[in-house]
Amino acid sequence: MSPPHPLRPLAEDEVLLARDAVVQKHGGDGISLFFRSIYVNEPRKEDLVPFLTAEHSGQSPKATVPRQITVLFDRIENGVPQLHESIVDVGAGEIRRTRTFPPYCQTSYTVAEFSQFQDICVASEIFQKAIQEFTLPEGFVITIDPWPYGGLEPDEDVPRYMQGLCYARNTTNNNIDSNHYAYPLPIIPVMDFVKKEMIRIDRLATGGKGDSLYPAPLTGKPKKLFQHGDFTSAEYVPELMNRPLRTDVKPINITQPEGASFKVHSDNLVEWQKWRFRVGFTPREGAVLHDVCYDGRPVMYRISFSEMTVPYGDPRPPFHRKQAFDFGDGGLGRAANNLKLGCDCLGAIHYLSSVITSTEGKPEVQPNVVCLHEQDNGIGWKHTNFRTGRAVVTRLREFVVQFVGTLANYEYVFAFKLDTAGGITLETRATGIVSVVPIDEGKVSGYGNVVFPGALAQNHQHIFAVRIDPSIDSYSIEDTAVVLEETHPIPMNPQTNPHGNGYEIRRQMVESAMFADAEPKFNRTVKIENVNKKNPISGKNVGYKLVPSPTQLLLADPNSVQAARASFAQHHLWVTGYRDEELWAAGEFTNQSRRDEGGVKDMVARGDWFVNNPSVTSRTGQRSSPVIWSVFGLTHNPRVEDWPVMPVEIHQTHIRPADFFTSNPALDMPRRRNETSVIVPCCSKTNAVAHLQGTPDKHVDPKDISKL
Amino acid sequence: MSPPHPLRPLAEDEVLLARDAVVQKHGGDGISLFFRSIYVNEPRKEDLVPFLTAEHSGQSPKATVPRQITVLFDRIENGVPQLHESIVDVGAGEIRRTRTFPPYCQTSYTVAEFSQFQDICVASEIFQKAIQEFTLPEGFVITIDPWPYGGLEPDEDVPRYMQGLCYARNTTNNNIDSNHYAYPLPIIPVMDFVKKEMIRIDRLATGGKGDSLYPAPLTGKPKKLFQHGDFTSAEYVPELMNRPLRTDVKPINITQPEGASFKVHSDNLVEWQKWRFRVGFTPREGAVLHDVCYDGRPVMYRISFSEMTVPYGDPRPPFHRKQAFDFGDGGLGRAANNLKLGCDCLGAIHYLSSVITSTEGKPEVQPNVVCLHEQDNGIGWKHTNFRTGRAVVTRLREFVVQFVGTLANYEYVFAFKLDTAGGITLETRATGIVSVVPIDEGKVSGYGNVVFPGALAQNHQHIFAVRIDPSIDSYSIEDTAVVLEETHPIPMNPQTNPHGNGYEIRRQMVESAMFADAEPKFNRTVKIENVNKKNPISGKNVGYKLVPSPTQLLLADPNSVQAARASFAQHHLWVTGYRDEELWAAGEFTNQSRRDEGGVKDMVARGDWFVNNPSVTSRTGQRSSPVIWSVFGLTHNPRVEDWPVMPVEIHQTHIRPADFFTSNPALDMPRRRNETSVIVPCCSKTNAVAHLQGTPDKHVDPKDISKL
Repeated sequence: MSPPHPLRPLAEDEVLLARDAVVQKHGGDGISLFFRSIYVNEPRKEDLVPFLTAEHSGQSPKATVPRQITVLFDRIENGVPQLHESIVDVGAGEIRRTRTFPPYCQTSYTVAEFSQFQDICVASEIFQKAIQEFTLPEGFVITIDPWPYGGLEPDEDVPRYMQGLCYARNTTNNNIDSNHYAYPLPIIPVMDFVKKEMIRIDRLATGGKGDSLYPAPLTGKPKKLFQHGDFTSAEYVPELMNRPLRTDVKPINITQPEGASFKVHSDNLVEWQKWRFRVGFTPREGAVLHDVCYDGRPVMYRISFSEMTVPYGDPRPPFHRKQAFDFGDGGLGRAANNLKLGCDCLGAIHYLSSVITSTEGKPEVQPNVVCLHEQDNGIGWKHTNFRTGRAVVTRLREFVVQFVGTLANYEYVFAFKLDTAGGITLETRATGIVSVVPIDEGKVSGYGNVVFPGALAQNHQHIFAVRIDPSIDSYSIEDTAVVLEETHPIPMNPQTNPHGNGYEIRRQMVESAMFADAEPKFNRTVKIENVNKKNPISGKNVGYKLVPSPTQLLLADPNSVQAARASFAQHHLWVTGYRDEELWAAGEFTNQSRRDEGGVKDMVARGDWFVNNPSVTSRTGQRSSPVIWSVFGLTHNPRVEDWPVMPVEIHQTHIRPADFFTSNPALDMPRRRNETSVIVPCCSKTNAVAHLQGTPDKHVDPKDISKL
Repeated sequence: MSPPHPLRPLAEDEVLLARDAVVQKHGGDGISLFFRSIYVNEPRKEDLVPFLTAEHSGQSPKATVPRQITVLFDRIENGVPQLHESIVDVGAGEIRRTRTFPPYCQTSYTVAEFSQFQDICVASEIFQKAIQEFTLPEGFVITIDPWPYGGLEPDEDVPRYMQGLCYARNTTNNNIDSNHYAYPLPIIPVMDFVKKEMIRIDRLATGGKGDSLYPAPLTGKPKKLFQHGDFTSAEYVPELMNRPLRTDVKPINITQPEGASFKVHSDNLVEWQKWRFRVGFTPREGAVLHDVCYDGRPVMYRISFSEMTVPYGDPRPPFHRKQAFDFGDGGLGRAANNLKLGCDCLGAIHYLSSVITSTEGKPEVQPNVVCLHEQDNGIGWKHTNFRTGRAVVTRLREFVVQFVGTLANYEYVFAFKLDTAGGITLETRATGIVSVVPIDEGKVSGYGNVVFPGALAQNHQHIFAVRIDPSIDSYSIEDTAVVLEETHPIPMNPQTNPHGNGYEIRRQMVESAMFADAEPKFNRTVKIENVNKKNPISGKNVGYKLVPSPTQLLLADPNSVQAARASFAQHHLWVTGYRDEELWAAGEFTNQSRRDEGGVKDMVARGDWFVNNPSVTSRTGQRSSPVIWSVFGLTHNPRVEDWPVMPVEIHQTHIRPADFFTSNPALDMPRRRNETSVIVPCCSKTNAVAHLQGTPDKHVDPKDISKL
């Protein structure tokens, strides 16, 4: 019997085994344990690669890879929590390693923590006093979204903090899903989360253009909020909306009567159209692809969405504290939606669930957090022989691995799309409700856009980092190289470019860890190549390529704490040396961070190198295989159209084969005509309805083709 | 009875009426007429706008817009052709205007012209002599793709020329669709198309890195070509391929059992989801959208793909002559494919046909050149209330207007996509067979990539220009303005940015015709605004926006003829003053051009202005409404994967509402669950199959929601 696969998903009993080991070792009288996260400690690459190599060659792996589970927990003694991380070998039933962390390392918030904020805040004296400053329309109640506390001052040394964005919710409609984001309140309470007590209430400036950065002094008279009286037009749940839903959107059914073309095997192994990979799922990243192979050849060891920072561009204090790191401060996996058939995904769908942990360390199943399906994406390739009229056309088909995360007001839809042309697309869609703050009615502001009376949607950025750990036709450290390829003009000259039309490709091998920016002017392309395998047709290294998106980078001042926390967001491309467990572009602890310790900037600084070049090997780092971090973003200066829930803003990064294959990998796609497509007639015979069906191609007789 | 719509498509009898008027006026004894193109001369804007205004207000238009047809023809007297353009008022049966052109103005090639090349060439003595320089494998015959003759020398004054790219075709497989592009020959014949005689045979360099730019001297011994003997692996028609087609691609059926949500009325009027527009079709541009309105409000007066240049980057003469202008030299409409149901388009499809002309001026129907359908594009917007678990999700639906053009070896798929969020996407897909030239077997080259033995796919660019003639909530010249909006950091300072997170939006009104480049570093955005209509929520001008793609611009030397012919390809954005009949980014006559006379560069130079600003109105031009030209491209350094037919390379330009609406226009999309989606089970029970169906959302009881 073959050994269990090291990339199998976390099982419920493994959570319990790991928990029990931790309780036994770290529990005790007067100690309580608060379990934050229990997840697979992924195998070391040097352990996993021999296993994968054996697996793909059809042999039995020689050694079993240890099964290790990470348990992240607070050990609370005398009311003081201390964050611990234990790695448990669940096969041996032993703890292999336990780490504690300096006090400034704040791990992500859990749902359990978020849920404590509102009750403590609302009960506090200072909050009760602060809300005397304003009055709400009758039937409105306060509701608070807890947020991480960013933007520490240089001299600010604080324990675990949390801030609350406050809104009012209309209860007169008797619907708990009434959109409270339409009614922002002019205060931000701050909580010491260790002591569970409110520290202060920050008051907000609510002015417009030309007004002060700071809140107006209190007048002593409560300010009446939301006098505009528009209590319906911000609603998005259908039963509350002030307009009917459209009735003229006829269903589009996507069906696969002969079944799906993909297979999902045990341990989340997926096979589809020569692709073969495993879907992982972590509390922080959501879905992750492991060991992505095409036709038996490895392409990607691991690809994942690593981090995102969302700094707000409103300079009025305390809005500088609004800088979310949605992976590190919250966790996309933990925030993953339970996806609904026929709503989040259409067609023939397979769902994956995942296992997370309760605060007691018990397993909890998150159902249907990932949907898997294939879809049609239009014409894949086509050629018509103009001499004969013979057209050959195939469709582009994609396999989609999709998950959706909700982070308070906002959602992200992430997808890995593998296609029949050997390409991998990493897609992000931003949607949900934009973050608004109060603005005096009738005013406008340069810091955002008024999207609803009294609600200013602040300008902000979303900057993502994708982590690409390649395995281009090999798992060996000896084989993979990163090359920056650019296309440059050649000045017109009689020797090499007599007519001025010539241009040249320039290549630069990335020899050691570095960063770079997109440079569309020179078509800068990242080639990921196997330096020891040549394409037999072109003679070039087999490889894949990606073109970094030249999106706007972080706007915050380089000397700001926002910038120090998100170095990754200051360049489009980072290439670092692979180390086990290094997955985080902004470092492991983003929450309340002052800088991105252990993030890509630190990884580059240590000087790992990739190639045996004497001028490089004298560096301080170690020989490693290169990991590519692709950074892209969206400067989101909101439109009114983004309200109350914004239409998706889509970004795609394409990773495509570049001399990896000996021809178009989709060449053998069938040219089958889809039999269920139908003609929609026109209302009038003035259109060429007569030509709609069965018009023959002009097809030339062979004897009419000119021959020599 | 209402008058006929001025934007109705060309009718077959109109072609005949226009032809007859031309024959009567310009025909005669000893004169022959060669009809090149007959198409609608679109109404002048000042005539059409009152008609549209009346149409939208439900009134009868006061005046009938004259129906004018353009007839482009050669009048041939004593064997000498003279290009003429007559505008015929087919209602009055009169010619309104006839233009002739200077000899250097070469209009596009017609299919009839292309088809003459091969026979004349092959029969010529100089060609017969040239092919003695090499021998072909047994059963191979010569086949020639005629190309426009670009890259004129500064002192080269030639009549209408044509060049031929020569290939060998394998006839031993008895299949006329055998891929001749795999066997390029080392000669390019050049024809004087007026005299119909061959001028010379250019010989090609076939070396690799380090070899001369010029062809090697003849040895006197014929060179044996295609010794590699691989005569199957470049084939793409299924019956010739050396590998079977995949059998594991199960059908994806896209059906609309309740019918489509769109209606096509007479005169190509389309209504779909609050969008209403007319689809035009011209021989040069293919499909064009006219009078695009949303919910009764005009958005676009006309949008079209205007031009594309494809310069090749191989500096070896005569490859500098390979610079196609696919719209001006050939014509995308004339090259449009007959689209097949279930192949080029899936689902419920309406097809439009068009009418072109034969060389005798008779109408010919091009069937099914445009397909119209709607499609699903994933999640459109979503929000989950994390307190209650209530998720509201809608789909993004798109309406697609697609056409496909074949230009010898290559194809382009163009689409306009209108969506339920008020957006318009202009999509291009490049596919087909890359242009190859011979290379000595075993050699590699910096000028391209070897994609098949002996075949070098040359590096090249595709640079497109889209023409956007807006009507943002108005047809009036007084209302439309273009604003460049940028997002800039604010240096950290105590007064305006105390913590460094603040950033600012800067706006610059475009007052007169100009060009600019994309500037992603500053998130440069083109806003198209109505300066006289404010969004009632935000107080800002209603508008649409687009972000120019910062793709690589023309690489050819600024002093080269390639650059002089394609000024448009040197900047991402041009804003010019509207003039009737000005539709061409590189000018009307691109074929064999020396410079782009009348193109966007000339339009900018005349200094038209858009706003009543005294500092601007002293310019030389006239007051006009602004037209936006968006330029983007693809530097295509071929991959082996692009062979033998390349997978689509997709580019999208998004034009999206920006404060045009008072909320998300897709807010009223139904949340209907698609009932035909199904679960694909896993092979094994280790996956969470139990959770797949009907897992309830966590839905919180109202009494558990914290309240004040």
